[in-house]
Amino acid sequence: MMHPLRRILALLLVGLLPAAAWSLAPPRFPRPQPRSRPGANGVGDYEYETRYFRQRLDHFSFPGVGDEDEDEAAAFFQQRYLVGRGGGWAGPGGPIFFYCGNEGDIAWFAANSGLVWEAAPRFAALVVFAEHRYYGESMPFGSKAKAYSDSKSLAYLTAEQALADFAVLLTDLKRNLSAEGSPVVLFGGSYGGMLAAWMRLKYPHIAIGALASSAPILQFEDIVPSTIFYDLVSDDFRRESLSCFLTIKDSWKELDDQANEQDGLLKLSKTFHLCQTLKTSGDLSDWLSSAYSYLAMVDYPLPSEFLMPLPANPIKEVCRNIDSQPKGTGTLERIYAGVNVYYNYTGTVDCFDLNDDPHGMGGWDWQACTEMVMPMSYSEQRSMYPPYKFDYASYAEDCIKSYGVRPRPKWITTEFGGHNITKVLENFGSNIIFFNGLLDPWSGGGVLKNISESVVAIVAPLGAHHIDLRPATPDDPDWLVALRESELEIISGWLWDYYGAGGALFQPVAVKGSSSY
Amino acid sequence: MMHPLRRILALLLVGLLPAAAWSLAPPRFPRPQPRSRPGANGVGDYEYETRYFRQRLDHFSFPGVGDEDEDEAAAFFQQRYLVGRGGGWAGPGGPIFFYCGNEGDIAWFAANSGLVWEAAPRFAALVVFAEHRYYGESMPFGSKAKAYSDSKSLAYLTAEQALADFAVLLTDLKRNLSAEGSPVVLFGGSYGGMLAAWMRLKYPHIAIGALASSAPILQFEDIVPSTIFYDLVSDDFRRESLSCFLTIKDSWKELDDQANEQDGLLKLSKTFHLCQTLKTSGDLSDWLSSAYSYLAMVDYPLPSEFLMPLPANPIKEVCRNIDSQPKGTGTLERIYAGVNVYYNYTGTVDCFDLNDDPHGMGGWDWQACTEMVMPMSYSEQRSMYPPYKFDYASYAEDCIKSYGVRPRPKWITTEFGGHNITKVLENFGSNIIFFNGLLDPWSGGGVLKNISESVVAIVAPLGAHHIDLRPATPDDPDWLVALRESELEIISGWLWDYYGAGGALFQPVAVKGSSSY
Repeated sequence: MMHPLRRILALLLVGLLPAAAWSLAPPRFPRPQPRSRPGANGVGDYEYETRYFRQRLDHFSFPGVGDEDEDEAAAFFQQRYLVGRGGGWAGPGGPIFFYCGNEGDIAWFAANSGLVWEAAPRFAALVVFAEHRYYGESMPFGSKAKAYSDSKSLAYLTAEQALADFAVLLTDLKRNLSAEGSPVVLFGGSYGGMLAAWMRLKYPHIAIGALASSAPILQFEDIVPSTIFYDLVSDDFRRESLSCFLTIKDSWKELDDQANEQDGLLKLSKTFHLCQTLKTSGDLSDWLSSAYSYLAMVDYPLPSEFLMPLPANPIKEVCRNIDSQPKGTGTLERIYAGVNVYYNYTGTVDCFDLNDDPHGMGGWDWQACTEMVMPMSYSEQRSMYPPYKFDYASYAEDCIKSYGVRPRPKWITTEFGGHNITKVLENFGSNIIFFNGLLDPWSGGGVLKNISESVVAIVAPLGAHHIDLRPATPDDPDWLVALRESELEIISGWLWDYYGAGGALFQPVAVKGSSSY
Repeated sequence: MMHPLRRILALLLVGLLPAAAWSLAPPRFPRPQPRSRPGANGVGDYEYETRYFRQRLDHFSFPGVGDEDEDEAAAFFQQRYLVGRGGGWAGPGGPIFFYCGNEGDIAWFAANSGLVWEAAPRFAALVVFAEHRYYGESMPFGSKAKAYSDSKSLAYLTAEQALADFAVLLTDLKRNLSAEGSPVVLFGGSYGGMLAAWMRLKYPHIAIGALASSAPILQFEDIVPSTIFYDLVSDDFRRESLSCFLTIKDSWKELDDQANEQDGLLKLSKTFHLCQTLKTSGDLSDWLSSAYSYLAMVDYPLPSEFLMPLPANPIKEVCRNIDSQPKGTGTLERIYAGVNVYYNYTGTVDCFDLNDDPHGMGGWDWQACTEMVMPMSYSEQRSMYPPYKFDYASYAEDCIKSYGVRPRPKWITTEFGGHNITKVLENFGSNIIFFNGLLDPWSGGGVLKNISESVVAIVAPLGAHHIDLRPATPDDPDWLVALRESELEIISGWLWDYYGAGGALFQPVAVKGSSSY
């Protein structure tokens, strides 16, 4: 059984419990990121060196130097970064492809962002993946336990500090490589894509452009409707099958009704093959809702692996299972048959342990309780969820209770903008590609229209969460091959402009025959 | 006599003592700003309301909420800001002219930045002057004594925090005025000009343009030669009179020689009419050098008031006094006659108290010891000072000794850029006016060339430190009237573009007959 406190924590990021009957919480931000099956499709085979950089904990204020040893541990940490060993870099002056690490182990992102590795040789670029502070091995205060111990130690886990880390690391790296003249192109997916876009806006002197993939930079305050994420999840299911959509929509009440019966929780636990008896039906709703959200995010046309392996077009599979049960099968039994595709595709799981929460308490929960406040509601008509309206007051209350921290819901838009983004960026920003796949529910908070000649949107109607970044495979559909090519052509244009203006000491090398595109 | 510690503090900002003979330290950044004579020329007559905004002490990290009362005092402070009461604002949607306060009392800047007040009616703009944290009344921790008590309390005195203050204040202000659609134009002089330029670069979603007057944003690291400031001070003197320049150049050795004689310090104290006997000749050199630097900064063609009233073209007056002494007058006596113009133009001072240091220990010393590291050297040929090469190691050592803080000399260029600024801004920035007067030694670190169509340099060969911002007077030379007009025409263009693109709900009003231009 989940410890009550832990349960609150697990519900932190968003929505929180509706006031009354429905114990369903909107999901947190996608974390950890989809991983590919190790070894499959050459994923994870990229060669790199792991390095560490002495990074400052607080870039924006100046606590004095105390006792030197004590100061070192409190004021600095080791930031991990990976440097490609392909040997294909043009050397000083040649491009640097820099991945802005997001909320997880940087090795995962490196393994899953094949595009960066596969494109680099074409431009004779050096590949660098930098880990985000407080994730993976990049832990302040010497250990994760210490870094995550309380709000005082977590205080420096913010996007602004992470961007400054990248800026300082890049500046130092370029100086050490005598590569001050090297143009830097930023990459990032999901939260990493937000960082890439923001970094291009805030540090244009450090990077010449950014590919921001599936970056929901508009999912703040009231810029997009708070219902959009779950509406899009719902659309994905309805698109595959209306009856599937309706079965899910009906299931929440069914679930609650059953939970309120005598021995209802026991019965539910059996229906869903849980290892332990449920304490509240909310745990089960979360578990189901979480599966739907992630299914929508990774609704790729090819097999992939998230926390467990998934088939191609996984929502189609889930719905097929829900719809194809014998007549007379109950709603909840159908639901179980569906989510079984997500949680047990290999068929090796005997029972499900909801305590084995893949999301656990992590850095993202903290970030969601501080600056990454993304309001999430369930609409009444379009969604397959029970109606729920985002309630900031209870959201904040839970953050204070859980972390002892009060969110700043307006800070991200103050610091990075978002309102009237078209007007602002058309006159100011340049060289940003916003990629979005429309199957991905995060596309609802993404930039879907061209803003100017050099701030462009690439939209894939059949794409899911940062599919463009995924390693190329021989089975990739044509549209995916083509859109990756478009992205690289745009990046090529940035580099061309850069070298052209600066007195061409270097030109991108021609497309290699070995390129997989 | 100056307390030894205080003396170290007073020497902080730059250069510090040369290793051997010459006890002359380069000056700190201009602070406090030139003030105009109260009441003269209508200066100080602008009508405004004084308001306070509950501002967050640390925008970039999230220390948790502790005991609510304790938290309030530690996590927030009252930021002062002035709002024009002219009544000429067009109302919601109409422009906002926002002055980015710098290192001093905001009322001084309001009184001295006549341009903002005088231009506002033409555009039906609302005028706002915001005070910089840790200056004037905007003190964290409840009082200046507490705010300045040590490095822990001073830690949050940084440019990034100040810019975030402005961003949060403006966002809140616009919301409260229902003026989210109002375009904001930033103004600032000197360090405030740097803030205005940086704010436009970092927060383009908050302000549509910036007039950055006499903003030495390139005076960092090795972007401009470290000798440039004192070379320009020296040029100003040589331009008026070669013999004056040579007298000053000779005086340092003379001063040192005399200090080393028996009763030398006593004699020097008499020559310079000091109230107390000198303890070291360094105090005297600083006092002299400080006068030269400030004279160069405020070498206006009209009478002005700095810390004491000054005549028009004050360097001309100083040099006239130095040169016009009877034949046979000693070098130091001539020097005394010269600086007397600066320190005692009204002739009311009986003796000079070097302890009455107008620069004292202030926030700028802290800022210079943290991020505002502006290397300063004396060149051998061009300058009128004894050669001195900036030595970062001793600079840092003194900062650690005095404040317990280690400077970060590369941080400003990492955070805000500066290297290759042309290349970066021509492709990225827009709507910034960099004004510089070439008599102003800070122009050496300024942007003196147009960068693009909308990032432009306005240069006044006969202008001094942010003369454009000063209140208009009937005696202003034509070039000054004309350049102010150019600035306002550019700003008018920004507003025109803004309203044009956004569906003109407001147009700037025609030039009023009462305008003084």
